[in-house]
Amino acid sequence: MSAIPDDFIQKTTSLSEEVTRPFYNSRKIYIEGSRPDIRVPMREISQEPTSASFGEEENPPIPVYDTSGPFTDPEQKIDLMQGMPDLRSGWISERGDTEQLEGPTSEFGSARQSDPTLANLRFEHIQAPRRARPGSNVTQMHYARQGIITPEMEYVAIRENCHLQALREDPRYTKLLRQHAGQAFGASIPDEITPEFVRSELAAGRAIIPANINHPELEPMIIGRNFRVKVNTNIGNSAITSSIEEEVEKMAWSARWGGDTLMDLSTGNNIHETREWILRNAPMPIGTVPIYQALEKVNGKAEDLSWEIMRDTLIEQAEQGVDYFTIHAGVLLRYVPLTAERVTGIVSRGGSILAKWCLARHQENFLYTHFEEICEIMKAYDVAFSLGDGLRPGCLADANDAAQFGELETLGELTKIAWEHDVQVMIEGPGHVPMQMIKENMDKELEDCFEAPFYTLGPLVTDISPGYDHFSSGIGAAQIGWYGTAMLCYVTPKEHLGLPNKADVREGIITYKIAAHAADLAKGFPGAQVQDNAMSKARFEFRWDDQFALSLDPERAKEFHDETLPHQAHKVAHFCSMCGPHFCSMKITQDVREYARTQGVSEGEALQQGMEEKAVEFKRQGAELYKKL
Amino acid sequence: MSAIPDDFIQKTTSLSEEVTRPFYNSRKIYIEGSRPDIRVPMREISQEPTSASFGEEENPPIPVYDTSGPFTDPEQKIDLMQGMPDLRSGWISERGDTEQLEGPTSEFGSARQSDPTLANLRFEHIQAPRRARPGSNVTQMHYARQGIITPEMEYVAIRENCHLQALREDPRYTKLLRQHAGQAFGASIPDEITPEFVRSELAAGRAIIPANINHPELEPMIIGRNFRVKVNTNIGNSAITSSIEEEVEKMAWSARWGGDTLMDLSTGNNIHETREWILRNAPMPIGTVPIYQALEKVNGKAEDLSWEIMRDTLIEQAEQGVDYFTIHAGVLLRYVPLTAERVTGIVSRGGSILAKWCLARHQENFLYTHFEEICEIMKAYDVAFSLGDGLRPGCLADANDAAQFGELETLGELTKIAWEHDVQVMIEGPGHVPMQMIKENMDKELEDCFEAPFYTLGPLVTDISPGYDHFSSGIGAAQIGWYGTAMLCYVTPKEHLGLPNKADVREGIITYKIAAHAADLAKGFPGAQVQDNAMSKARFEFRWDDQFALSLDPERAKEFHDETLPHQAHKVAHFCSMCGPHFCSMKITQDVREYARTQGVSEGEALQQGMEEKAVEFKRQGAELYKKL
Repeated sequence: MSAIPDDFIQKTTSLSEEVTRPFYNSRKIYIEGSRPDIRVPMREISQEPTSASFGEEENPPIPVYDTSGPFTDPEQKIDLMQGMPDLRSGWISERGDTEQLEGPTSEFGSARQSDPTLANLRFEHIQAPRRARPGSNVTQMHYARQGIITPEMEYVAIRENCHLQALREDPRYTKLLRQHAGQAFGASIPDEITPEFVRSELAAGRAIIPANINHPELEPMIIGRNFRVKVNTNIGNSAITSSIEEEVEKMAWSARWGGDTLMDLSTGNNIHETREWILRNAPMPIGTVPIYQALEKVNGKAEDLSWEIMRDTLIEQAEQGVDYFTIHAGVLLRYVPLTAERVTGIVSRGGSILAKWCLARHQENFLYTHFEEICEIMKAYDVAFSLGDGLRPGCLADANDAAQFGELETLGELTKIAWEHDVQVMIEGPGHVPMQMIKENMDKELEDCFEAPFYTLGPLVTDISPGYDHFSSGIGAAQIGWYGTAMLCYVTPKEHLGLPNKADVREGIITYKIAAHAADLAKGFPGAQVQDNAMSKARFEFRWDDQFALSLDPERAKEFHDETLPHQAHKVAHFCSMCGPHFCSMKITQDVREYARTQGVSEGEALQQGMEEKAVEFKRQGAELYKKL
Repeated sequence: MSAIPDDFIQKTTSLSEEVTRPFYNSRKIYIEGSRPDIRVPMREISQEPTSASFGEEENPPIPVYDTSGPFTDPEQKIDLMQGMPDLRSGWISERGDTEQLEGPTSEFGSARQSDPTLANLRFEHIQAPRRARPGSNVTQMHYARQGIITPEMEYVAIRENCHLQALREDPRYTKLLRQHAGQAFGASIPDEITPEFVRSELAAGRAIIPANINHPELEPMIIGRNFRVKVNTNIGNSAITSSIEEEVEKMAWSARWGGDTLMDLSTGNNIHETREWILRNAPMPIGTVPIYQALEKVNGKAEDLSWEIMRDTLIEQAEQGVDYFTIHAGVLLRYVPLTAERVTGIVSRGGSILAKWCLARHQENFLYTHFEEICEIMKAYDVAFSLGDGLRPGCLADANDAAQFGELETLGELTKIAWEHDVQVMIEGPGHVPMQMIKENMDKELEDCFEAPFYTLGPLVTDISPGYDHFSSGIGAAQIGWYGTAMLCYVTPKEHLGLPNKADVREGIITYKIAAHAADLAKGFPGAQVQDNAMSKARFEFRWDDQFALSLDPERAKEFHDETLPHQAHKVAHFCSMCGPHFCSMKITQDVREYARTQGVSEGEALQQGMEEKAVEFKRQGAELYKKL
């Protein structure tokens, strides 16, 4: 089991420099909403002016969606011992529908809190939890259905519009705003995301804002197919490796590279304490799979699990501030035999735990039979359901089979029940699916689950890519994101082989940011192409520093460039290392334009003139060619 | 300019061990065709038996398509100074339609051959070239249209069937042959690739076998959308870096990881000699862009290019054995102004050279006006056209525009002309295209170019991924491969930033093998899923060594696994590093099956029994749940 190093407390007071250093040529900005305590962070990328040879003009700064949290704001004092700034407590308390408890109400939570032997591990400033007042429902869905626009809703609306915010009136952006029409497969994305649109999507169940009232440090974000496609990352110390300290660093690392949400999948010791450290410092929604911890509590024996232990675990984690729970309530007894002929059986950990429990007890899944009680807990803290796909396929051969689709239909039934309680829901999806069968997954999810947001793991489009599964799943992720999946669960290069290190996490996240962004472009999300257009213009004009800064991973872009052309002079060179000066097509294109200019006519006119002069000759030659057709 | 190291000759006598070492748990096998000199290499992956706990059975060896050439055959004596074995000279000479020349007939080629100062660079065993006898046509298309099945056609048929060869009768393969139905978008792939099918596809122009009569070392392969999707790789010393020696090593490196064809894009000094070394040792078709060398001959001044210089260059390279030429004959004068408003203008090197020539001279592209003369050269050696997309988009903003599609239509006209000469043709495609606009490219290519094979570079689906462009282009490549593209030109992580090193080349190739394989699966290519199924079975049965061997990159898979669990004991562990022993879902599934077995009933029956006993209870509980819907 993972040992806690003696210097744990000291180490977690600060993050490494590589996590907190500002992005290349960028600064943190905040866009204020309708009230001063709504301040939405964005990253603003500055650009160099265009040089004289390309027409001398100013290039505007590019604001981009920023998941990196307070860590990358030099104005913020980062103290992991204190936790991140409290953004939401005011919003929560002013609603007047919650009460401050005296301490954790779960048995396990209060035992851990009062255990003196854990003092050296424990986050020092734990607040007593909040809970809905009796009879109250504190979910964002509930407010939305009451017609209330919460600060959280306004916050995400501003955030989604990051590329459009303040750009529209500035003529420097005109060219950058050009974008191809999308193909949205039934999604209907407005030209601008308004708070009212956010509210209506939440009310309809087409989107969720995972935002536990006990996670006031959260920078709210939205998951739905009429919004930007999001990326979930996973961390977690397993029994084999990794410590609490590493997990906190990885959480901030995930935020830096673009993780929109984060699942803490820890299964080792002290997961309660690890989770507290993560939550108190996490700017993104945190998800868990509570059955993992419940299983720890019964020493790994699935058949000893009970509703009582699960219930206490749900409350324990809800009171810490977990924003969404994966609940495998769709693994019904009758579906389990459908997996018997599969090549890889059941591959979801949660799914297999519950299948084992059902078989051992000859009883129906207790998460299914107690589903309404779970809803009662969820709505008292605003924890969102992530309805788990315990029967997802573990290989291409098992894709889209009866077990998988049976469970999906049950998840649809459960969605309806959750919505009766105004509890937010998203639906987990596969897995391993060949390309031609991906769309069926999306279409069926939308139909069976009434357009609740889909949240998929990849899918991997082949099984033979160990070491590169981030990529083979990224292909599927880009496609299903385009078809309508709202959030993509990332996969690292170590999938199926080992535990990811920091480099793997970064590689996995960037891969998935590419997939998500490609999907936004394909759906036609407004403003999605601004950054691409700015990059292309910078590329054409040989503004290397701007190319680095506009990259999804500026540090790697610069590093790779510098491997071949390390000198500063090359950053302004009008050619690059691939082709050398004679063969640079961009340079030749520039020469073409220059040629036209020196002729005193526009390029088009120069050509037209040339063509007219030669028209007779061309016609004759052309005619000969065409005659052969 | 790149200097040739003094120890060049010595160094190129051998390849590094990492290029030639056998693949993990694999051996080279040869499948013999209808005559003993048709011996098609494959890699056969051995598998461990299934252990008793999973039902004790033998697992059959898996034969896979093998591009790695003689280098990975321990029985072959690899001597780069001698070149690779001559496989095809007998086939070529027995056709009786070629003549052995006394020496190179190009001016440049004979000058280089007789220049004593180049002796230390020159490959020592240059054969005098062959050429078609006057009036003869030696293209594979020509033979196909005469109804002749050449040894090359039979060779590629056996090669395409690698997964099916000898498997069908063996019951151990039954489960592994299971495969989902594909969605082939108009492709029509037979259950088995026969030599006659190959012939008919060549005759129709839907496929090509690039196989210059002066490249007898070639292991023939086929490019067409009713065959496996292929991957092209690029190498080339530019003016900035890299030497001949490195290029030969990179060629073999490319073969090792799965490059089906290779383009030598060298633009530095001594490209004639580099090319000779590469060709004499290359098991894959070699392509070039002859205009690059022609430009060198006029000191980089595009406007000084002439048909005479180009013609000499084409003959020079054809007599060395180049298998396909990129010819940018579709860059017409009238299309150039259409690029003036683009964000990134013309990004193809060849395209921009020709655009510059056209503008400077006010003349139509000389490759277009001399196209029939080029065809005469092509058919005298069987060089295939790769009709270049000189006006491909260099960014999303420029995708699918009038310049790009205008050129594509011209490529269609040129295809018809080439086919009048029975010259093989493929069509180059983009580039940078957002996902929702990819299919239009494929559909338009099939229509405008009469189903000639499409050969695309990616396309990249976003512009903001420098450092990860192999991946953002791989997303587009997988899609367009599925839609019908026959060959994908790889992209490395260094694209847009610098020159790839060996690690980048490997990364780029594996990424593209994944994309190509995903496309084969999606199209439903017969047997494509065998390797996936074998992997999945090995995964479920914790056969780690087999998982490594069945991976597209066995070395990386093993390396990543060993990072977390380095000990040999872990190779047979019934859990892996991600979840630890308690949380391994595969282990739990195994327990589920074991449980069923110990009950003396099948798993399905055990469950059925349990369900019946509990039926009343379930129904009541269920009824309560359903009532809420």
